[in-house]
Amino acid sequence: MTSSQRIEDYGIRIGRMPKGLRNTIADVPGVAVGHCTLADGPVQTGVTAVIPAPGNLFREKVMAACHVINGFGKSCGIVQIEEMGTLETPILLTNTFGVGAASEALVRSMLAANPDIGRETGTVNPAVFECNDGFLNDIRALPVRGEHVLRAIASAGADFEEGAVGAGRGMSCYQLKGGIGSASRIAEYGGASFTLGALVLSNFGQMEDLTVDGRKVGASIFGIAPPEDEQGSIIALLATDVPLTERQLKRVARRASVGITRTGAFIVVMPLSSNLLVVVRRAGQCGPLGSRPVPAGVSRDCVCQAPSVVPGSRRRSPPP
Amino acid sequence: MTSSQRIEDYGIRIGRMPKGLRNTIADVPGVAVGHCTLADGPVQTGVTAVIPAPGNLFREKVMAACHVINGFGKSCGIVQIEEMGTLETPILLTNTFGVGAASEALVRSMLAANPDIGRETGTVNPAVFECNDGFLNDIRALPVRGEHVLRAIASAGADFEEGAVGAGRGMSCYQLKGGIGSASRIAEYGGASFTLGALVLSNFGQMEDLTVDGRKVGASIFGIAPPEDEQGSIIALLATDVPLTERQLKRVARRASVGITRTGAFIVVMPLSSNLLVVVRRAGQCGPLGSRPVPAGVSRDCVCQAPSVVPGSRRRSPPP
Amino acid sequence: MTSSQRIEDYGIRIGRMPKGLRNTIADVPGVAVGHCTLADGPVQTGVTAVIPAPGNLFREKVMAACHVINGFGKSCGIVQIEEMGTLETPILLTNTFGVGAASEALVRSMLAANPDIGRETGTVNPAVFECNDGFLNDIRALPVRGEHVLRAIASAGADFEEGAVGAGRGMSCYQLKGGIGSASRIAEYGGASFTLGALVLSNFGQMEDLTVDGRKVGASIFGIAPPEDEQGSIIALLATDVPLTERQLKRVARRASVGITRTGAFIVVMPLSSNLLVVVRRAGQCGPLGSRPVPAGVSRDCVCQAPSVVPGSRRRSPPP
Amino acid sequence: MTSSQRIEDYGIRIGRMPKGLRNTIADVPGVAVGHCTLADGPVQTGVTAVIPAPGNLFREKVMAACHVINGFGKSCGIVQIEEMGTLETPILLTNTFGVGAASEALVRSMLAANPDIGRETGTVNPAVFECNDGFLNDIRALPVRGEHVLRAIASAGADFEEGAVGAGRGMSCYQLKGGIGSASRIAEYGGASFTLGALVLSNFGQMEDLTVDGRKVGASIFGIAPPEDEQGSIIALLATDVPLTERQLKRVARRASVGITRTGAFIVVMPLSSNLLVVVRRAGQCGPLGSRPVPAGVSRDCVCQAPSVVPGSRRRSPPP
Repeated sequence: MTSSQRIEDYGIRIGRMPKGLRNTIADVPGVAVGHCTLADGPVQTGVTAVIPAPGNLFREKVMAACHVINGFGKSCGIVQIEEMGTLETPILLTNTFGVGAASEALVRSMLAANPDIGRETGTVNPAVFECNDGFLNDIRALPVRGEHVLRAIASAGADFEEGAVGAGRGMSCYQLKGGIGSASRIAEYGGASFTLGALVLSNFGQMEDLTVDGRKVGASIFGIAPPEDEQGSIIALLATDVPLTERQLKRVARRASVGITRTGAFIVVMPLSSNLLVVVRRAGQCGPLGSRPVPAGVSRDCVCQAPSVVPGSRRRSPPP
Repeated sequence: MTSSQRIEDYGIRIGRMPKGLRNTIADVPGVAVGHCTLADGPVQTGVTAVIPAPGNLFREKVMAACHVINGFGKSCGIVQIEEMGTLETPILLTNTFGVGAASEALVRSMLAANPDIGRETGTVNPAVFECNDGFLNDIRALPVRGEHVLRAIASAGADFEEGAVGAGRGMSCYQLKGGIGSASRIAEYGGASFTLGALVLSNFGQMEDLTVDGRKVGASIFGIAPPEDEQGSIIALLATDVPLTERQLKRVARRASVGITRTGAFIVVMPLSSNLLVVVRRAGQCGPLGSRPVPAGVSRDCVCQAPSVVPGSRRRSPPP
Repeated sequence: MTSSQRIEDYGIRIGRMPKGLRNTIADVPGVAVGHCTLADGPVQTGVTAVIPAPGNLFREKVMAACHVINGFGKSCGIVQIEEMGTLETPILLTNTFGVGAASEALVRSMLAANPDIGRETGTVNPAVFECNDGFLNDIRALPVRGEHVLRAIASAGADFEEGAVGAGRGMSCYQLKGGIGSASRIAEYGGASFTLGALVLSNFGQMEDLTVDGRKVGASIFGIAPPEDEQGSIIALLATDVPLTERQLKRVARRASVGITRTGAFIVVMPLSSNLLVVVRRAGQCGPLGSRPVPAGVSRDCVCQAPSVVPGSRRRSPPP
Repeated sequence: MTSSQRIEDYGIRIGRMPKGLRNTIADVPGVAVGHCTLADGPVQTGVTAVIPAPGNLFREKVMAACHVINGFGKSCGIVQIEEMGTLETPILLTNTFGVGAASEALVRSMLAANPDIGRETGTVNPAVFECNDGFLNDIRALPVRGEHVLRAIASAGADFEEGAVGAGRGMSCYQLKGGIGSASRIAEYGGASFTLGALVLSNFGQMEDLTVDGRKVGASIFGIAPPEDEQGSIIALLATDVPLTERQLKRVARRASVGITRTGAFIVVMPLSSNLLVVVRRAGQCGPLGSRPVPAGVSRDCVCQAPSVVPGSRRRSPPP
């Protein structure tokens, strides 16, 4: 179902920039990924957790921005990320109808770790993104429960599986098996080295359009599957340690559609939905310019913003 | 806790336009509201369901638009409403940490009524909006369950309670008791009569600012509560039978902040969040200009758009 | 400088859909394009006018929507097009520093044709879009004057030149000569035939990335130009006679970036700016579903919205 | 026409916060305002220039954000301010049909001061905002010329007139004389003192709604003017020395509508347009936290971003 073969093992080298050590999103320092896969007859789905930084995310939020390519989607958490420029939970990926359960489980796990949430401080914004795996999974069964969320989070690490695992279990892509994929690239700037990592939950496309490194391979294997209208969705998560502001993160997020298009997609048909999230290193880590050198011109500030925690004690008493 | 006294019973008449029969959102034909209230010691919360039109909402969607005043909120469903211009479920209001459970229950109830969802058609977008009632309610207890959602929906009708009921149970407003409130106004245009109805879940403000019909009454009763920073949130739902397009609905939604401001709010402090939703009559009802006369100039079209249902049969088989 | 050779004359056929008669934006009924080219030593620039529909555009506005890929641009008119969903002037393309003069000239020409503008009615919103042709043109000379705008409009027709003409005169693309290009495609839907036309002002890209119909031709001719960072901009105008609402037009506009990406662009570097505009047939033409058959499912309404003209006589008298 | 009487001279004190020294936007250090008034028979209009910071704005840009309440307006410059988070020219206010001429004059004045613009660097984004003064001014005469822009800029200082001057010359507000108004407030935070200043170009409202400090004075003087539909527009500029990011500036900008509403406006009728701009101190001034103390919690970074200047020499040569 999953394989250790990756695209470079087939001699294909995409792009001109050097890759990170693992060629995954976990090359961005502090990022970890875990899965919980459900595979039992018609139930073929799961949960993937992307932890953007170690430690208590509610207390030490990370900078974040979103871009929605096509809003035919049920992901939650986007509105507040846009408003506050921060992410305060792990990011969960799951199937469309798992969002409610995953969101509640994420809230419960944040409450357990933070006894002040909802009392001394404000509430917490769970970030849960989804694709519809109803082609391969009995999505009406709603099998995703809180325990699966906890397992995905608990299993998170820098080394993780790709393919038909976690939220990717039941996804299809270009009429072939889709799911979780990841990559990273290294950029040098001003003498310093930065990493941009990506992780996608891919679930879109018709075979005829599939393009690999500029080669239209889909057209050549076309015929093994009947043509369909392009539909489906993708969630693309980006992480980086470039010290960008929320505005700059959003500009990066908007460019993720370029990569999606290069695989052949037209992003044309209605249900294609894609929510792109960019996460940087924990703000607190960069200090009053951080401990690492930030080259002149990148962003002299590092934007070490301490995201506000809602102040004030909130007494609890019965209503009059 | 609740009262049949409304503001006009105190001789206060707000605005210059005539009111609808009930002076609630249910004056818009087809709109119904129901509550499920949880009141048990520290648990003081609930669910309110606003049904925008009778019948099967997934098959006969209603036109809708949203406007976010301040995105410090965890409401879900907004992204797709924006993209597609339609609402396909009842709207649920609840406390911040009840969104996950309410959203799952809403999906389950839509699945039960529509065996094709997730198989022959696409998925369904649950609309759940929230305020933080943690001041009066033990929000960390997460008491909202699916059964409460079903009860709120089942109890929905044109006549409904206002005040500390349903989602309004634990809300505070201007340091007094907040919760559910509703009103309506009638506009004549081109010889025809139209209704605009509003329902709010109010949970914001400091007493000093409270203004009623232009009178700063908060300042005069100031002293019975210590001054606080303005914070909190509000969900304002609007419904109308004016045949507007999604673009026009969004323009109406943006104006709701004017009404909020007239009660004294500065909308200044960070956590104030407000998501405004405008819903019109079911598109299908207006036919190829509907059975009712649409005056020239309002909108000659009525925008009886048939929202696309994702086509194609979605086979289900185990992944390779 | 310009040539009658088009890409299909080289045996290259892009896409799977049939082309319109001219394979330009003017295949959409009523659309006309005209140029005024300035070519005199260091001055190499001009104005291109795209007329979305015949007749008085201020009185009979056309539906429109915009999408900004990257807002590093000085185009004007976008804010009101977004708000009102309509376009009420020809669209002008010119160089970045010509926007002010072009915008004033467009206002003057609209005033001349509409004696009520600014007196009995409101004002008019000039739509002027731009790219920076400073590489080939002395952009600091500001040579674009009102007369050039009038000439571009006066020369507009269904047959027009492409290439280094009008606003395209000084543009560069993939380190080769850029400028004006146009194409069209025909879609059958429900037994009816619809046209989508595009016109671009192209001014971006580095040769190494140039891709033609999936072939990376830029890499093979690479070496004749030194590598540069990708930069530049593009304006892509779309026109169609599909009876879409403003919301749907905006969804179409967002997809234009897919086509740009297929030519090799990464849309990565900062100054790339692209403003996409979609225009449909004049609303009034489609009547209470228009005279032409609209197939079921496209959009039952045709959205023949009569865009409001600001009412009220506006007296003019000296201030007190 | 203008008067040294301000609202506090009538014993009215609005709000609870202390005012700055001048009670104008120029209380924000470095902000200057100048006017050029055209008053000649039917021509009653002008230009107002707001200089957000001293020195070369193109080289040392200021942070900025915009919020559009109602996009029925022809202002230019907004798209790039949103994208880049910076303002690089003075802000001009004028009448609707003066935008083109003002924009060109602003470009010319920036070119004169910066010989590298359009050659070694990219282009410049003129910021010009407008209201329609067609009720009192012969707006069709297009009397605003480049010289008026230069005069407004040249006359800018910390002390400036308010009322029927500059762009405010022909504006109406609540059926009374409108125009330029300004105010400031001081906030203490963490032991440091910050200033927020506002300047409006007011041109909206019907007398019946006019509210001053909560008193509905319009209703009491109602009758001296016939009732009209609310229409018109307002430009509200804010400036501050609070070290906010672009995201935070935008949150401040969105709140300006609260102040507008408090004067009685419903922001209901279609043509009301309002573009709000927030400007902070020049980024470069705050250094690696600036020379002034920034209290903990405000924003640890100061976001001293050096806005990118488009690199690369842009040769100029005739097209092939």
